[in-house]
Amino acid sequence: MPRKPEILKVTPVADSRLFHVEALDLRFSNGEERQFERLATRGHGAVMVVALDEDNNVQLIREYAAGLHDYILTLPKGLIDPGETALEAANRELQEEVGFGARELVLLKNISAAPNYMGHSINVILARDLYPSVLPGDEPEPLERVTWAFDDIEQLVTRDDFAEGRAIAGLFLARLYLQQNPG
Amino acid sequence: MPRKPEILKVTPVADSRLFHVEALDLRFSNGEERQFERLATRGHGAVMVVALDEDNNVQLIREYAAGLHDYILTLPKGLIDPGETALEAANRELQEEVGFGARELVLLKNISAAPNYMGHSINVILARDLYPSVLPGDEPEPLERVTWAFDDIEQLVTRDDFAEGRAIAGLFLARLYLQQNPG
Repeated sequence: MPRKPEILKVTPVADSRLFHVEALDLRFSNGEERQFERLATRGHGAVMVVALDEDNNVQLIREYAAGLHDYILTLPKGLIDPGETALEAANRELQEEVGFGARELVLLKNISAAPNYMGHSINVILARDLYPSVLPGDEPEPLERVTWAFDDIEQLVTRDDFAEGRAIAGLFLARLYLQQNPG
Repeated sequence: MPRKPEILKVTPVADSRLFHVEALDLRFSNGEERQFERLATRGHGAVMVVALDEDNNVQLIREYAAGLHDYILTLPKGLIDPGETALEAANRELQEEVGFGARELVLLKNISAAPNYMGHSINVILARDLYPSVLPGDEPEPLERVTWAFDDIEQLVTRDDFAEGRAIAGLFLARLYLQQNPG
């Protein structure tokens, strides 16, 4: 693996309420110089939850996704609040978006969305031993809740409305964990 | 599923060479109004390639990812050029980044990265029947090529340096396709 490129300069180039674009002037170890743009990462990270109920159904939500201007089917997810651990955030989001708390929470993996130009990553968390518990969320409209048999995720991942790469990864990572940690 | 929110207004709010942020003023079907920000989508889409050689190894690259300021292990990927189909782009990227062309290319699924605030999506393409062929790329330094036994992707997806959600999804989608379309 080559030595990391040297960052010669970081320049803020565009700013909005949510997005902060910066230009990176880089010198690679072979002497080549390039300028790359990336979204600066702020905040405390994010969580995505694979929550399995006692009938082995995974809990999904259908929500409006502004990037696509369409409704999508995906896993519950959200930002980690200041002072929260990832597992605490997962349990809170689950209560806000799906109406369950979880007595068992396991961090499966921290995955990235588009690492070439974003530092954002999300903690994929497996939640089991669920109990009914509702916390108020900040959604503009109630989320539709959908359950799906976890044994049938092959059908789910071929649906056009279930196409978020991180959610597909999350389901397969959960299956892999459960295969490797049975019982 | 509720009716899609009405877009009341789209306002450009920040611009850089690569990123175009817009604000969406939305009215949800329940009357609730919100402003969301998203990255505007331009270009012709993108491709990510799961290329399997005759020994059933998947072709990986190790490249610098500016979002993380680190080297990552991932699948070959890139933007679709104007006038190219997704399969043509996959075959070109494979020749640029890995040094192989493919006689067999199958589109597995179009997946999104962060659909709540980005419209970007990537076509996951399975490539087989490879032959040596090199096209010049535009990388600042030569990419390191890594091959990995496709039967051992469980070990790969647990590595810290293989954490791009779309690449994890791509591997599992390819395995699912090959299980459903044997021989």
